[in-house]
Amino acid sequence: MPEYVTDADDPRLADFTGLRDVELRKSLESERGLFVAEGEKVIRRAVGAGYPVRAVLTTERWLASLADVLGDAPVYVVSEEVMQGVAGFQVHRGALASMERLPVPPVAKILEGGSRIVVLEDLVDHGNVGAIFRCAAALGVDGIILSPRCADPLYRRSVKVSMGAVFAIPCARMDNWYDGLEEIRAAGFQTLALTPDQSVTPLDTVEMSDRVALLLGSEGDGLSSRWLREADEQVCIPMSSTAMEAGVDSLNVVAAAAIACHGLMRGAADPVSKSISQN
Amino acid sequence: MPEYVTDADDPRLADFTGLRDVELRKSLESERGLFVAEGEKVIRRAVGAGYPVRAVLTTERWLASLADVLGDAPVYVVSEEVMQGVAGFQVHRGALASMERLPVPPVAKILEGGSRIVVLEDLVDHGNVGAIFRCAAALGVDGIILSPRCADPLYRRSVKVSMGAVFAIPCARMDNWYDGLEEIRAAGFQTLALTPDQSVTPLDTVEMSDRVALLLGSEGDGLSSRWLREADEQVCIPMSSTAMEAGVDSLNVVAAAAIACHGLMRGAADPVSKSISQN
Repeated sequence: MPEYVTDADDPRLADFTGLRDVELRKSLESERGLFVAEGEKVIRRAVGAGYPVRAVLTTERWLASLADVLGDAPVYVVSEEVMQGVAGFQVHRGALASMERLPVPPVAKILEGGSRIVVLEDLVDHGNVGAIFRCAAALGVDGIILSPRCADPLYRRSVKVSMGAVFAIPCARMDNWYDGLEEIRAAGFQTLALTPDQSVTPLDTVEMSDRVALLLGSEGDGLSSRWLREADEQVCIPMSSTAMEAGVDSLNVVAAAAIACHGLMRGAADPVSKSISQN
Repeated sequence: MPEYVTDADDPRLADFTGLRDVELRKSLESERGLFVAEGEKVIRRAVGAGYPVRAVLTTERWLASLADVLGDAPVYVVSEEVMQGVAGFQVHRGALASMERLPVPPVAKILEGGSRIVVLEDLVDHGNVGAIFRCAAALGVDGIILSPRCADPLYRRSVKVSMGAVFAIPCARMDNWYDGLEEIRAAGFQTLALTPDQSVTPLDTVEMSDRVALLLGSEGDGLSSRWLREADEQVCIPMSSTAMEAGVDSLNVVAAAAIACHGLMRGAADPVSKSISQN
């Protein structure tokens, strides 16, 4: 049964407080073990992926559209003003769900049975993390491993930008950055480090083994020198020399990740992706 | 000589009024024949590409960094508050330049001598247009043709997201959408229409001629049925069937454009891009 709430400070709404306050949310979400999904489509995908709903915050207008997915979770119905008062911004998609985080699998779980994986080193932008998950999932990458400092893929903005793809692809986080690649290589993965450096091998010409891990760094700093050095091979996406002379010196990290994930699927086991390698 | 201005309503600052008001800017910019570049790096690229500076609006702090590029253009120095008052938001990059638009070349100019071009149909999001220009320029696409309703690549947000790549790649706009593809095909271009439809040929397996035009539509609607029908071939980026079952049904338009532009360069004349086709 929906409960009508008229006070933005009502303690029942605490899961949804200050959604634009990154620091507040980080501590609140890790303390309570929750994350927030925004909008009907994304909430449905989270439920479909098995995340239990803790509570829903919505307005009268959006209530009916969610009725079939919520199970026994409490549903708090508020005015647009109270919604904005709690969340700290105008929630265009009309519904927020707080969901329980599930235990994160160990890195070994992602490695076992995977053929093509992506490893993200220290990407701190939630939007970029979400966008890369969307690409990786759509193109058939088997799993994603995050460095310890990488942004949280279940943070609201990551979830939103990924369109829920963060629920569709297995993901684990390393305990230790320094030796992080060792376990991956020990599992038989060929590690390819993507760099803007145009003197290394183009990704599309690399001889790929059955198991390949693509390492991606952040847009500004790129991969650490340690990971670049430890990788089996450094690879690049060839850029136009004319453009580089004109000062267009790089792709943004999401565009580069999209091209690289697509290249990674060449020769992969997924039958859909096989057609990619026929050229 | 810099001129110090203390009133946000000073008529000398009119080129910079209301930068977040899309409708106001559209009419103001077309009436005056100008566009706005934001931040030192982008202003330098615009000047380097030959666009004349009409005026510069900056704060004392950023004045010195631009001194060498401005020529005789008037430079208005204001406080942060006045800057915000004029522009309508806090200008983090500290400097704005209004630049004169140059005559847009006819479509024939882009077609002549081009080997790989991109044609955008009705993309209305300025950020997406800017991001696609950045990808296309970085990867070595020869030119871009816009449908009549496509968003303005010289709009401030397009310029900013493109990191100035809008100045680095030739661009023209069709007069007429309905017959827009005729001129391109008459110039000997093979036209490839990108679609999410997984039943058509994967882009990477298409036999490409010396001259190829890749047609891209918007994220929501995709290409019009007319253009899909008129194209020589419909092409897709293969998606993972598992992801599609989980509801991750598409790449975002920029990720798709990045992969498609990269695929387009296969076998192209640019020597840098040749390495792409060696697999």
